[in-house]
Formats: sequence, C-alpha cells, structure tokens
Amino acid sequence: MTNQKQIRKLLIANRGEIAIRVIRTAQEMGIRTVAVYSEADRTAPHVRLADEAVCLGPAPSAESYLKMDDIIAHCLRLGVDAIHPGYGFLSENATFARKVKEAGLIFVGPSATAIEVMGDKISAKNAVTAYDIPLVPGTKEAVEDVAIAKEKAAEIGYPILIKASAGGGGKGMRIVEREEDFEEQMERAVSEAVSAFGNGAVFIEKYIQSPRHIEFQILGDQHGNIIHLFERECSVQRRHQKVIEEAPSAILTEEVREAMGKCAVDVARACDYFGAGTVEFIVDNELNYYFLEMNTRLQVEHPVTEEITGVDLVKEQLRIAEGKTLSLKQEDLTIKGHAVEVRVYAEDPTNNFLPDIGTLKKYQSAGGPGVRMDDGYEEGMEVPIYYDPMLGKLITYGNDREQAIQRMLRAINNFQVQGVETTLSFCHFVLEHEAFRSGNFSTKFVEEHFSPELLASQDKGAEQIAVALVAKLMQEAETAKSSGAKTVAKTSKWKNRIR
Amino acid sequence: MTNQKQIRKLLIANRGEIAIRVIRTAQEMGIRTVAVYSEADRTAPHVRLADEAVCLGPAPSAESYLKMDDIIAHCLRLGVDAIHPGYGFLSENATFARKVKEAGLIFVGPSATAIEVMGDKISAKNAVTAYDIPLVPGTKEAVEDVAIAKEKAAEIGYPILIKASAGGGGKGMRIVEREEDFEEQMERAVSEAVSAFGNGAVFIEKYIQSPRHIEFQILGDQHGNIIHLFERECSVQRRHQKVIEEAPSAILTEEVREAMGKCAVDVARACDYFGAGTVEFIVDNELNYYFLEMNTRLQVEHPVTEEITGVDLVKEQLRIAEGKTLSLKQEDLTIKGHAVEVRVYAEDPTNNFLPDIGTLKKYQSAGGPGVRMDDGYEEGMEVPIYYDPMLGKLITYGNDREQAIQRMLRAINNFQVQGVETTLSFCHFVLEHEAFRSGNFSTKFVEEHFSPELLASQDKGAEQIAVALVAKLMQEAETAKSSGAKTVAKTSKWKNRIR
Repeated sequence: MTNQKQIRKLLIANRGEIAIRVIRTAQEMGIRTVAVYSEADRTAPHVRLADEAVCLGPAPSAESYLKMDDIIAHCLRLGVDAIHPGYGFLSENATFARKVKEAGLIFVGPSATAIEVMGDKISAKNAVTAYDIPLVPGTKEAVEDVAIAKEKAAEIGYPILIKASAGGGGKGMRIVEREEDFEEQMERAVSEAVSAFGNGAVFIEKYIQSPRHIEFQILGDQHGNIIHLFERECSVQRRHQKVIEEAPSAILTEEVREAMGKCAVDVARACDYFGAGTVEFIVDNELNYYFLEMNTRLQVEHPVTEEITGVDLVKEQLRIAEGKTLSLKQEDLTIKGHAVEVRVYAEDPTNNFLPDIGTLKKYQSAGGPGVRMDDGYEEGMEVPIYYDPMLGKLITYGNDREQAIQRMLRAINNFQVQGVETTLSFCHFVLEHEAFRSGNFSTKFVEEHFSPELLASQDKGAEQIAVALVAKLMQEAETAKSSGAKTVAKTSKWKNRIR
Repeated sequence: MTNQKQIRKLLIANRGEIAIRVIRTAQEMGIRTVAVYSEADRTAPHVRLADEAVCLGPAPSAESYLKMDDIIAHCLRLGVDAIHPGYGFLSENATFARKVKEAGLIFVGPSATAIEVMGDKISAKNAVTAYDIPLVPGTKEAVEDVAIAKEKAAEIGYPILIKASAGGGGKGMRIVEREEDFEEQMERAVSEAVSAFGNGAVFIEKYIQSPRHIEFQILGDQHGNIIHLFERECSVQRRHQKVIEEAPSAILTEEVREAMGKCAVDVARACDYFGAGTVEFIVDNELNYYFLEMNTRLQVEHPVTEEITGVDLVKEQLRIAEGKTLSLKQEDLTIKGHAVEVRVYAEDPTNNFLPDIGTLKKYQSAGGPGVRMDDGYEEGMEVPIYYDPMLGKLITYGNDREQAIQRMLRAINNFQVQGVETTLSFCHFVLEHEAFRSGNFSTKFVEEHFSPELLASQDKGAEQIAVALVAKLMQEAETAKSSGAKTVAKTSKWKNRIR
C-alpha cells in the first residue's frame, strides 16, 4: 500500500534553529540538504550549513517562506525528493501538504487530511468521539448565537472559557467569571476571532483553574503503528506561549502517565496519523486530564523528549516519510533521566516580553557536560524584526530533575549575549523559584509569581554585590601589592544580561 | 579515620578547557570557584567563568601555573578549602599534594604516596606484584649496564623496547628489531633519558606489534571502596599522544572487559588509591592485555566515560575529596550507548602536527543532538605559544558506535575555525577510514594509514567539487534569472579548514 522511496535530497522549508536541527540529522543520514532563505536571512547559519541554498525573496514571510509554489518549483528544478516544513510557516498547511504530494514529492509530515481534521478544534473533537477521550466539559459544536451560548454556559457552570474555533496563541479567547459579563465577553471574542482568523465560530467550555499544559509526543508510521514517547511539561508560559519545558513531568504518576499515553495514541489513531505529532492536554490539580488539541508537526520543545528517550525524532520523521516501519516498539521505550529546555528569545522580560531587536554583539552559548545547544544565530548577526525572535534553545540533561535544573542554572550563568535582552534572566528566575522546584505550578506562573521588579531587584542585588566586591578587591590589591600578585574578584550572576 | 569536610570554595590550579570543566561542576554543586591565570591568559574564559581569579605571574609555566607556594598562599588568603589540579602542571606532583595537605587544604586527588608509587614505572610494577596483574614480559628492575641489558633482551626475544623509567611522551624510548643494533639504541635511550628526566635508568620489555592503548577509569573513596567505569579506546595517536578516544572499545568482549576491569581495580588497590584514576593497558591482536601504567589524575578523555555511564567524574572527585563514600556500586554501572571524543589541537596535520599559533578569527563550535563541547577558547582569542595547543574537545554521543561517529563527522563539518590549522581535518579523515570503522587499528594508525598528501588530495577533491558546482551554479543562475530567484550552491566539506 505504501510506496517506499529513499530520500536523497531534502529541502527544509524553514529558517533559524529548526532548519539547522533538520539539516544536522539529514547530514548524519547522508541526505543532501537544500536551505531556503529570505533576503533578511542571507547570512544566517542555516544557509551556510546546507549543501545548497535558494533565496525565496524579500524578508516578509508572505513574500518568501510562505511561497508554496515557488518552493515546490525549486524542489523540482534541484532534484529534491522531500520537503521538511519544520514548525510554523507551512508546517500545518494542508494545502501545501497536498500540493507537495501532487508534485510527486514527499511531504515530511502527516496526510493533508490529518492536518485538516486536527487543525480545527471542533473537527478534532468530533474525530475522537469514537474513542474514550476525556474532553473539557463544553459545547461540542461551534456557537454563534449569544442566547444559546449563554444557556450552555449556565449548564456547564462558571467560570467558563470562550474560545475561537480556529484560534491559537490566545487570540479570540475570553474567561468569563460571572454570568452578568457573558454577553459582552462573547461579543469581544467573536469580533477578535473574525479579525484574526476570518471565522467567528467559538465554543464554550469549563474553565480550569491553575491548569497545567502537559503534552505527549507520538510517532506513527504509514503502516498503522503508533507509539508515544511520554510527556513534556510545558506549563511555564509568557504571553500564552511556552518558554520552559521539561520531560518527564514532575507530577505525573506512572498510572496517569500510562493512561494519558494510551489516550494520545488513540487520538492519533482517530485521524489515521503518521509522522511525528503532539497531543496536548490540560491537567488540573487532581491530575484529571482533558484532550486539548493535536499539533500535526514537530514541536519546538521536541529535544527534551529526545534526551530522555535517546530517539532522534527528526530521523524517525524522515524514516516514516520514506515509508519505513517504526524502528521502535512501545515496550522498548523507557524514561532515562530528566531534561529541561529554555527558549532563548530576544525579548525584554522587564518590558512585558516585547521583542528586543538588534545585533548580537556577543553570542557565546554554554557547553560542557549535559548541555545541548540548538541555535539558529551566530555572533555578529542581526536579529530580524520579521520573524519569531527565538535565538535558540538551551537544553540540559541530568540523571534526575535536580541535576538537570542545576546544569541549566549553570549554563544560563555561562551564556553570554550582548546586544539584545533575552528571556535567559527570566528563565533563571523561574528555575530558582520554589514553586518551580516543588513542581507546584501552572500556566499562571508568570501572573502569580513574576513581576519585572523581581528581575530589576536582582540586578540591584548584583550591583550591591559588585560594590562590596570592589571594596574587597581594593583591600586585596593592597595585600597583593606587597606579595607581588594581582587579584580580580567578580560577580558571576547575570553576566549574560550585560547589554 | 577520614575527616569529612565540605568544600565551599575551590581553587582550580589549571587553565584552558579543564579549568572550565571543573568550574562547571563546582557551580552545579554550589561551590565557589577561584581561577588562576598567567599574564598570557588574562582574557581566557576560565578567568571570566570563575567567581574570583588570581594572576600568578608571567606566561612561562614555571613563573605562574607551577608556582606551588604562591598558589597555596592565595588559597589561604582567599579562604579556599580545596585545590583541583586538573591534568598536567601540578596534577601528578607528589610534593605539591603533600604541601597542600600540610597547609590544611584538601588536594582533589590521591595521596602523595600513591602519586609517587605510580609516577615511576618500576615502583608501579613492584607495587602490583602481590596481585595477579599481567605485565609485558621484561626486566623488573631498572638497568644501566649495556651487557646485562643485552642478555635480558635475548631472553625476552626481539623485537624489544627500551624505555626510560621516568619517561613519558615517547622520550627515552627505542624499539630494537635486531640484536646487532642493541648497543647503539641503548646508548641513545639512556642519553635521551638523562637529558629529559635527569635519570638514565631504563627497562627492557617485549615489543608488542600493532598494540592498542586501552585504559580503564577507576574511582576510589577514602574508605577503601574502588570501582571501575569501563574502558576507553585511545589507540589513535599522533606524536605518541592521543587525538581520538572512544568508549566503549569496539573490540573488547564482555569477558575480557570484566577481567581487565577487575585488574584495574586491583592495581588501584595495590597503592591504596582514592580519587579518580586511570589504569592503562597495552592490548594485542589476540586481546592479551598487559598493565602499562596508572595515571593518578583526571584524564583529558574522561568525557567519553561520563557520556556512557551518566557519572560526572569531577563531581565524584569532589565528593571523594570531601571524605564521602562513593555514590555508586560496581553493579549499578552499565554501558549505555557509545561516545567519541576528538581533541581539537591548533596543529597543522599537513606539517607533521606542528603547533599552529595565531588568533582565532572565527571559532564556532558545533551543537545539536548528541554533541558536547568542552572548550577553553573563544572567538577573538590568541592561542599562546606557552602551553599545550589544545583548543578544546568535541564529544559526540549516540545509541551505538555508528551513530556517535556519524554525529562526529557532522559536528566536524559544522565546526568553524579560522586563523589556525587544527586536527579536525585529520580526525575527519580517521573517522571515515575503513580501518577505524572496522575497529581494526592500533597505535600505528598514523604510520600505517596517514600521509599529509591524503588531506591535501581531499582538499583537491573539494576543489574539483567546487569547480563542478560553480559550473552548476552558473547553469542554475541562468534558470533562476528567468524565474527571478537566486541560488547558491556550496561544498560543505572541510569548510572548517578555511584559513
């Protein structure tokens, strides 16, 4: 039924760290690589690392990275066998997946149909009804009428959540605590959804207080085999987007893990899924879990899963795309150790995490035992305003959670960035925080525990330490003068924040 | 019997990557660090990464890194609890170990006695006589008289090896194939030994053809517990010094591994060893193994052992020095996966591996899955002529030997160094060579398989590829002109060799 075809030449329809990530595995597999780039990315390392590179056009994504037909035409011209879409851009675009296939090329991802089914929250929930998948109590179908919606909300019980059917990134999302606020919030949600997605359909569901975001990695081949590779805990978010992830979760019991894993495999089975995918769940304080959505692509945070399982997920994606059967069975997989990832965004955590664009005057990542750096930038590069401002991902591995966290704190302290503010200082704050250490945190971490002053006061603390150290230095210099030696004393904290 | 004392502040009496390696673990353990540096190393990263730093004096080691009394005085002045000597410099200096202890400080290493016993090849062999340790057939005692030596050589049978008792690095070492050459070679060996070590004593042993260098990592605590952490294969050498190491060995059987491990533990027991140490063996084609010597310090190539066992060897060293018992038992240890290390020396492999000093105009190490970089330099730094020209160590890990090697080849291709020649191109050559791939190689790899022309001709190959690519590029440019897109085609091989 499935054609087997070896991939000899791969085009990566993406930029930054994920383009490099895919190139690295392709090189290890002996596959030739073709990078694409916009004019703004001419000097980016993914261009240099690939065997060939094609400029797609000007910086705005619509004029370069999203030009489906041009990308396909380049593949045909250059003798490319397959396209890896990375994440973002065209990775969850069913039209693109279909066009790629129609051009006789391999799309490294699931079928266009699976992308379509899982790309819409309502069709995704309908698809899984045949399986025993726990869903957050709420409307099964999209609602547009305010009166009907209000009735449903009363049935479910407040607080409730209004959510755009085609949403993402927090757009078209409203929490309603009291019935009297319902109409106003519903109108706002619909209007946001229309302007963001051109689709005003919303659904209404139970609002989970202190929710955790826990997701399962799955892999399926084109022969109907599906396995899961355990969970990733992604609750630490800012602006509704993940910034620290870890695997395994600090709170799941073995029993809940097994049940959620089975559930994730069932979700994938419900849409005849093949490729790498992620099934996202909301988990409450009592470890009740509810299926949220499925991402039909490689996830930013996939490295933590690779670290604890020893599986190269990109390699598995390419093997699956070639029509091979999975190289692993569920019973072969165990969790070994613990991994943490922090996303290094060029953002200012003291200014509401706004992107901080500039030139990387200094950019020196950390190394040594247990440290993996997946980066997309190099010293001297400009961070362009056109794209997601993620510079790269810093991943640490340890025999247990404590060692992985200690290694991450050390790696953040050793990391040098000058020219832009980054999320590193914020991540250091989180990793040292009692709530994170104890495992007792939710997606509300920032709201509950963080304020910019906490970083500012840490800076002030460092200044005070510096003053004390200068005094000590002068005293030591006096001593040294007589002994003929020279002494330097320094504070190591927040070095990476020097601008 | 053993005093337990927590280390709160640690001075690292070393430079470069090993100073950084120790600082990293100390930071993870919450130990404050003090770096030392020579005037030539003022801008070195180990100075920046430590909490405090002390200048010891001018660049020559005798005027800085080897100044024992100054280093100890700085420790006392700065409230340091312990000194980690790294490798080289003072790490195997029994006088230093003794002075450190007498000053009331902790020496992170074995006892001065163990250093002395194992520091001399003859006393080391005498020490292990109570145990059933296989030794290369040869003289048990040092010989100075030529006639007696010649008689012994005849008993052992040619070819034989003449070796300085206090030797190292190939100095005072002579292979004699035929009896008629004996006198001349003996005289040369003695004279070399006198000038290099001030000691003309030599011993004579069976010369092993195609020997392999395989060593076992051991750890012992101050309570008599000793374990081994399996072997490292270090046969690929240039100028009698290791350049590529891997763990485990591609050729040991489980039976031989167990026997050699037991033997390594016995050697350590013979000198009441505590701390991290390495027992070196020569292994012949039939897997006969002979004890060579013991290194009473952390080894350059220790990371490959860390990768396959999950043990942080520096952490264990510090715990042992604090008087704690080993955190592991022999039966807890298993080999997981495979690791390879290549040493990145600033040396020119096409010019007899002579050091190639200069400024690192570009220095960008590789990253991504399975890649660990232990480095001591940064872009923009000068490589000083005063020290060993090792820039750092590139380590890759994989589920099996093939994956570790593929990752290393990819990492070497991605590594960018400009300003100095490095051993990276040579290491790439070795890792692609059939002899290395099959596991069928010895310490004579360079002599048997390498000549500078092979790298030069690979460069020529790359040039030919480049010419072909330029032709293709022009053709593509023609096509692109009509479609309005731009194309770049490049050769990825030996990019790191661009000077």
